[in-house]
Amino acid sequence: MARLIEELKKLPGIGTKSAQRLAFHVLRSPGEDADALSLAIREVKLHLRLCSICNNITDVDPCGYCTNPVRNQRVVCVIEEPTNIATIEKTRSYNGAYHVLHGTLSPIGGVGPEQLRIANLLTRLGEVDEVILATSPTTEGEATAGYLAVELRKAKGDLKVTRIATGVPAGSDIEYADEVTMTRAMEGRREF
Amino acid sequence: MARLIEELKKLPGIGTKSAQRLAFHVLRSPGEDADALSLAIREVKLHLRLCSICNNITDVDPCGYCTNPVRNQRVVCVIEEPTNIATIEKTRSYNGAYHVLHGTLSPIGGVGPEQLRIANLLTRLGEVDEVILATSPTTEGEATAGYLAVELRKAKGDLKVTRIATGVPAGSDIEYADEVTMTRAMEGRREF
Repeated sequence: MARLIEELKKLPGIGTKSAQRLAFHVLRSPGEDADALSLAIREVKLHLRLCSICNNITDVDPCGYCTNPVRNQRVVCVIEEPTNIATIEKTRSYNGAYHVLHGTLSPIGGVGPEQLRIANLLTRLGEVDEVILATSPTTEGEATAGYLAVELRKAKGDLKVTRIATGVPAGSDIEYADEVTMTRAMEGRREF
Repeated sequence: MARLIEELKKLPGIGTKSAQRLAFHVLRSPGEDADALSLAIREVKLHLRLCSICNNITDVDPCGYCTNPVRNQRVVCVIEEPTNIATIEKTRSYNGAYHVLHGTLSPIGGVGPEQLRIANLLTRLGEVDEVILATSPTTEGEATAGYLAVELRKAKGDLKVTRIATGVPAGSDIEYADEVTMTRAMEGRREF
């Protein structure tokens, strides 16, 4: 019991109290529930891996996005985390491939280019016409996009490298836009 | 006293209680304070007017923005309210002229084009190369921008009409971007 509590405490957001409550729940629940949970935990590690092309989490390699013939594999959208795919899929307006970096450059956090999954982005450019840099417009996201733009152009001179728009969010009044966002919205204005 | 309370209640956000408190404050305060307030209220109506060129609130006509020789008068930024000027001035990246509409198109609110100050926008285009439509990316703001784009092109064929960028706000994670904002950020992507 103490060992289970110790293991549960390693999970994020689970303290001693929560770990005890979870452990007692397992103790009281039917044997098949405990077995199913135990198995599910093991199987995640056994079967889920990163797609060798785009680094998305998948149970088949290459992943469904990389092998989907309906998607335009000549456009690659570079994102920070696997969860960002859901954010972009929700828009129903993107039909290209993805590339997950699993992080952003962060000199303070000790994350350099070698800690990110950039190598297999540079090697997949042969079949690619456009790379959309969709890292967040945060300090780290911008630094990562800037670094990638240089590396991508070095790797393939005629590649189209684009950056998602920074601006006033849809539905929001410009009155609430901060200086940086408003500056970027003005600079990024487009012919109507 | 009752009359003062009635007049104060007409101000936005002032109910009976607040009006009574304000009225009693006036009653208790020195005579010169009450005189100064009374005068200030009258003078606002006497001296402040709308700039005949850009409709900004001003005490001299034309206003300081319209007569400033350092500002580029060939670029006009169209905004909804006079307060939006402060939002754009804060960016320190815009050095053109303004045009205040004093509202947005709103069929539900009964605001049509004739209720907005569009007429003196169309007549000032002779000396103008670019009109930036900086209405908010709200339903009304977008409708207003769409309407203006058509009218502006009708009035001057070779005019450059631009729209401020809609997108993920600076410093924000794309994880928190709604579908419409993310769609617009993708559509509005620019060559890096």
